[in-house]
Amino acid sequence: MQIAVVLYDRFTALDAVGPYEVLSRMPGAELTFVAAQAGPVRADTDRLALTADAAFEELAAPDVVVVPGGPGQMERMDDERLLSWLRAADAATTWTTSVCTGSLLLAAAGLLDGRRATTHWLLMDELERHGATAASERVVTDGKYVTAAGVSAGIDMALTLAATVAGDDLAQTAQLLLEYDPQPPFDAGSPVKAPAQLVTALREVSRAAQPQGHAP
Amino acid sequence: MQIAVVLYDRFTALDAVGPYEVLSRMPGAELTFVAAQAGPVRADTDRLALTADAAFEELAAPDVVVVPGGPGQMERMDDERLLSWLRAADAATTWTTSVCTGSLLLAAAGLLDGRRATTHWLLMDELERHGATAASERVVTDGKYVTAAGVSAGIDMALTLAATVAGDDLAQTAQLLLEYDPQPPFDAGSPVKAPAQLVTALREVSRAAQPQGHAP
Repeated sequence: MQIAVVLYDRFTALDAVGPYEVLSRMPGAELTFVAAQAGPVRADTDRLALTADAAFEELAAPDVVVVPGGPGQMERMDDERLLSWLRAADAATTWTTSVCTGSLLLAAAGLLDGRRATTHWLLMDELERHGATAASERVVTDGKYVTAAGVSAGIDMALTLAATVAGDDLAQTAQLLLEYDPQPPFDAGSPVKAPAQLVTALREVSRAAQPQGHAP
Repeated sequence: MQIAVVLYDRFTALDAVGPYEVLSRMPGAELTFVAAQAGPVRADTDRLALTADAAFEELAAPDVVVVPGGPGQMERMDDERLLSWLRAADAATTWTTSVCTGSLLLAAAGLLDGRRATTHWLLMDELERHGATAASERVVTDGKYVTAAGVSAGIDMALTLAATVAGDDLAQTAQLLLEYDPQPPFDAGSPVKAPAQLVTALREVSRAAQPQGHAP
C-alpha cells in the first residue's frame, strides 16, 4: 500500500508527522513524503525541515494521500502543479485524507464539492466557501475522503483510518506503541472548551492575517 | 530562550515533533534541532528525515533540552560525545526534558540518579536499571527534570512545561491552536487500558528484541 504524505513550504509539522507515525506502522505500508521536488521542506516555524524523498510525479498512483495544513496552504490554493497531482492521485486512491487546512487544498482541487469535511476551527467558513459542507467534528469521513480538524487531530484521523484499513487490533497496537493515552494539563483544545478570551484573541489574529487568513 | 531538540539516527519522529510544535510557540523561544552533525537525520521507520540545523557543540548552553526516544536510543547509550554534551548542556539548562526512551539517555549521562522519571511503558525496568526511580505517570517532574511517557506523551509534557515557563494562557493558546482535543477512536493507549492480548504481544516483541530491548 503506497501512502503519499504531501509537503510544501510552511506546512505544520505535526499535521504530517501524526498520521505518518500511525500509518507507517500498518503492515505493507510504504509511506513516502512527497513535495514539488525531493529534498528538505521547511515547516511554518522555520525551525524545522522534513525531507521529501520524492517529487510528486514519482508517486503517480498512491493508494492513500495525506495532505497536511499550515500557513503555507494559502499560497498553494492556485498551485496548478500540486492541484493537478492531487486530482490525478485521487483518481487512484482508496483513501484521500487531510489534516487541518489541508482540506482547503483538497477543496481547491475540486475534490470536496458537496462533501462533508472538516478543517482547523478557525477556517471552517473558508472550507464552506470552497464548496464543502463544513462539519465541526474531529474526524469526518465522506466516502473515501477522510478529513481531520486542526493539527493534532491527524493522529485521531490516522487511527480511525488504520482501523478501517488494517483492523481494530492493528490500530490499537499502534495506539499502544505510541502510548497515545492523552492527558493534556488543560481542557482547552477546542473553541467550545477553551477560555472565551483566548478563543476571541485567536480569532482576531486570524482575521488580521486575512486575506492570508490561515490558521497559524 | 534557547531550546535544543536532540536528533540521532532511528529516533521516533513524533517524540521530537510533539514538543517542538508546542515549545516553538512560546514567546522568545529559539528552538533548534541539534545532532552529531547538521543535516538530515533518519527516523526509526527510515521513511522520514528531519533536518538538524546545528551540531551539538554549536548549542553549548541551551536553556531547555528535549531528548526524544526511539529504537536508536540503545545505540547511543555509550555515545560519549552525546552524553558529554548532555551533561554540559544540563549544567546550563533551566529544564532538561525527555520523551519516551529519551530518559534512558539522560539516565546514561548520569542525570537521573535517584530521581523520579518515566519512559515508554515497555522500558520502565530499564529506566530503573539505569538509576532512576521509574514512575508510571504520563509526565513526571523532579526538580528541573521533566520526563514524558511514550511518544505522544511529549505533547502533554510540553504543554505542562509551557504553562510553567510562559503561563497557563500561553499553554492553553498553544493547545487551542493545535486543536489538541484528543478523541482517539479507541481507549487503548496504555497497558492498563488496551486489550490484554495486545499488551502481551508487544511485550513479547520487545523481549525478543533484547538486548536491543527498545520500544519500537
